[in-house]
Amino acid sequence: MKRYLWISIWFIIVSLFYSPSMGADRWGTGALLVIVERENSSVVIVDSLTNKILGRISDLGLLHHATVSFSHDARYAYLVSRDGWLNKLDLLTIKRVARIRVGESSIGLAVTQDNRFVAVTNYKPADVKIVDAETFAIVHTIPAYKEVEGKKVYSRTLGMVDAPGNLLVFSLMDVDGIWVVDADQNDFPVIKKFWNIGRMPYDALLTPDGRYYIAGLYHSRHLAMLDTWTLDKIQKISLKDPLKKTPKKGMRKVPHLEGWAMGNNLLFAPVVGEERLTVYEFGSWKLIKSIDLAGIPMFAMSCPGGRYIWVNFAGPNHRFVQVIDSLKIEVIKTLEIGDRVFHMGFSPKGNRIYLSSYKENKVVVIDTRNFQIIKEIPVRNPSGIFSSVRAHILGL
Amino acid sequence: MKRYLWISIWFIIVSLFYSPSMGADRWGTGALLVIVERENSSVVIVDSLTNKILGRISDLGLLHHATVSFSHDARYAYLVSRDGWLNKLDLLTIKRVARIRVGESSIGLAVTQDNRFVAVTNYKPADVKIVDAETFAIVHTIPAYKEVEGKKVYSRTLGMVDAPGNLLVFSLMDVDGIWVVDADQNDFPVIKKFWNIGRMPYDALLTPDGRYYIAGLYHSRHLAMLDTWTLDKIQKISLKDPLKKTPKKGMRKVPHLEGWAMGNNLLFAPVVGEERLTVYEFGSWKLIKSIDLAGIPMFAMSCPGGRYIWVNFAGPNHRFVQVIDSLKIEVIKTLEIGDRVFHMGFSPKGNRIYLSSYKENKVVVIDTRNFQIIKEIPVRNPSGIFSSVRAHILGL
Repeated sequence: MKRYLWISIWFIIVSLFYSPSMGADRWGTGALLVIVERENSSVVIVDSLTNKILGRISDLGLLHHATVSFSHDARYAYLVSRDGWLNKLDLLTIKRVARIRVGESSIGLAVTQDNRFVAVTNYKPADVKIVDAETFAIVHTIPAYKEVEGKKVYSRTLGMVDAPGNLLVFSLMDVDGIWVVDADQNDFPVIKKFWNIGRMPYDALLTPDGRYYIAGLYHSRHLAMLDTWTLDKIQKISLKDPLKKTPKKGMRKVPHLEGWAMGNNLLFAPVVGEERLTVYEFGSWKLIKSIDLAGIPMFAMSCPGGRYIWVNFAGPNHRFVQVIDSLKIEVIKTLEIGDRVFHMGFSPKGNRIYLSSYKENKVVVIDTRNFQIIKEIPVRNPSGIFSSVRAHILGL
Repeated sequence: MKRYLWISIWFIIVSLFYSPSMGADRWGTGALLVIVERENSSVVIVDSLTNKILGRISDLGLLHHATVSFSHDARYAYLVSRDGWLNKLDLLTIKRVARIRVGESSIGLAVTQDNRFVAVTNYKPADVKIVDAETFAIVHTIPAYKEVEGKKVYSRTLGMVDAPGNLLVFSLMDVDGIWVVDADQNDFPVIKKFWNIGRMPYDALLTPDGRYYIAGLYHSRHLAMLDTWTLDKIQKISLKDPLKKTPKKGMRKVPHLEGWAMGNNLLFAPVVGEERLTVYEFGSWKLIKSIDLAGIPMFAMSCPGGRYIWVNFAGPNHRFVQVIDSLKIEVIKTLEIGDRVFHMGFSPKGNRIYLSSYKENKVVVIDTRNFQIIKEIPVRNPSGIFSSVRAHILGL
């Protein structure tokens, strides 16, 4: 009998003192990468300090063009799948903790600046859904349309960002509009509607300083820019370079704009369907230069610190990336990474870059200082790489 | 006997399933605040999403002028006390996990851009100590001196920042120098020494874009600026405003420079001992304006997004803060907070500001959109407020 008593006491002590939370299975959430396994309906979570995979979360829906935003404490990643599933992923337990269907075809999302809601842009139905981050219920729907001769013309939505003053800004693809929503009010009113911004916005971003909303346009040769501090008008920034005639190529993919890059107080903007980047002076938006590239740019992303801009390509040169020095304003390096480089991400202070090679089932880790490969992480058909640093960047 | 057996089994089950790590005691580390209790040798950790105190860590040394930096995953806060104790605080368990004495009188610190080392500037002895972040042993000492007529004149060090390319930059107070260290090399060589930068640097910062190192000077009427991309020369930025004559007041406290603020592509720099801020165009460093203030500025800090600059004061108007709109370039708000407002911090995306009222034992939480008080958090003699967002900001 006494023996069992001692066993009991021993287990009491163990259960009091033993706690997995004290061990190596805990981590800070500030330097994690969520990497999309595009054909596997899953993501892997990588610790960018050790370059180790912490775990995998599966059953997330169709992950073509899947996008991720983070709660402000970087504990949760919100992932929206192409087929309309919004997933809430706990980065401490590596588990999905909630999901909800927000549309039949979804394309992007943002977390409001008060951290309370997730806003998703849908292609189908033509609306924006607002989801409570806690209860994970849809609390509001914003139908997207333009009234033309008394009729409602509905539109796909995209380019959702959080903006200063707890605003949300997004674009209406089929009716050439940009709308501004006040997320501070319970009924999420659309407080501004801008029309005729240019033909067919296809993606948009907030500049890293958190001020300017810029939409790329599929059929116009300018960018549409809104100053979110003043919300007064759409400014047009020309993409034409009078000094340069480059042929327009067939469009396999349009560039993604959240990747637009700032460095040396310059903005580096990929041109749709051409093998060049345009470089603008920040604020005045004066065209400084066009830079010839090895292919049609897909993403142009600034390494933290802004000195170097990394570019990947759609089309034939998909195996390569190029590095632009924002001080010299020219390409300084061309690197071969692997079959179909789909996306890029950085460690928090930019000493490492992570590159998806979709066809070769690997994420290549490179030292940004000497361009040497440090490691290759096995990931199934990797596409998007999302650093939890984004939790703190306005517009992401 | 059987009864004890069942009790044993019950405890086995409990100890297998019970895990504090699954419960509410876990948190992401991206939105935490480390708040210094200046006279209590302790800090409290506050979750800026809930504004609740998660816990207190004590026995940290003399915390007058204590400074905090973070590991890149925001799991650990490194705190250096005035009397030379470097502490490593685990923000998941709210415990100190390591400490080491690095000097008799310490003043600042930075984490290297590879996240491997903590560099501390000392007043006494006149050196910089490099501590391994993992083993927490001193791995290198950099004595700080200038050779004058064959003799070594030793100097207090300060203004330590991490800079692009895994560099460290700091200033030498008593010999008017700025030194650059390559933290990528095992022996941490000083690769550049700049002299005659101006008389008596007292603090320094890296601009938020991560590029320019700027030192304030106690006895010179300019700022000393080093471009860390080129590392070629010290540029002098004049603090004199030809349009303005403001009396030089007695100096109770010098302004702290890590708080210098960027917004609207402008830099807002407090002037030593005068009741004004100077405003410069970023990059060209052209003086745009002086702004009159309610007192001698101590910190001028930009709310994430850059639209609003918050300023607190040394001297008589210590109960107040003022808010500058960087678009209008003028003061738009004066708020009374409490006796001796010592420091400020923001929530990750800037919807909340936290202000220490040292004498009233409280941290006041304000909604930055409507300037209303949301909460007062009881904290013993609070001074420095350090957001874990700093883990990702170059130079902090």
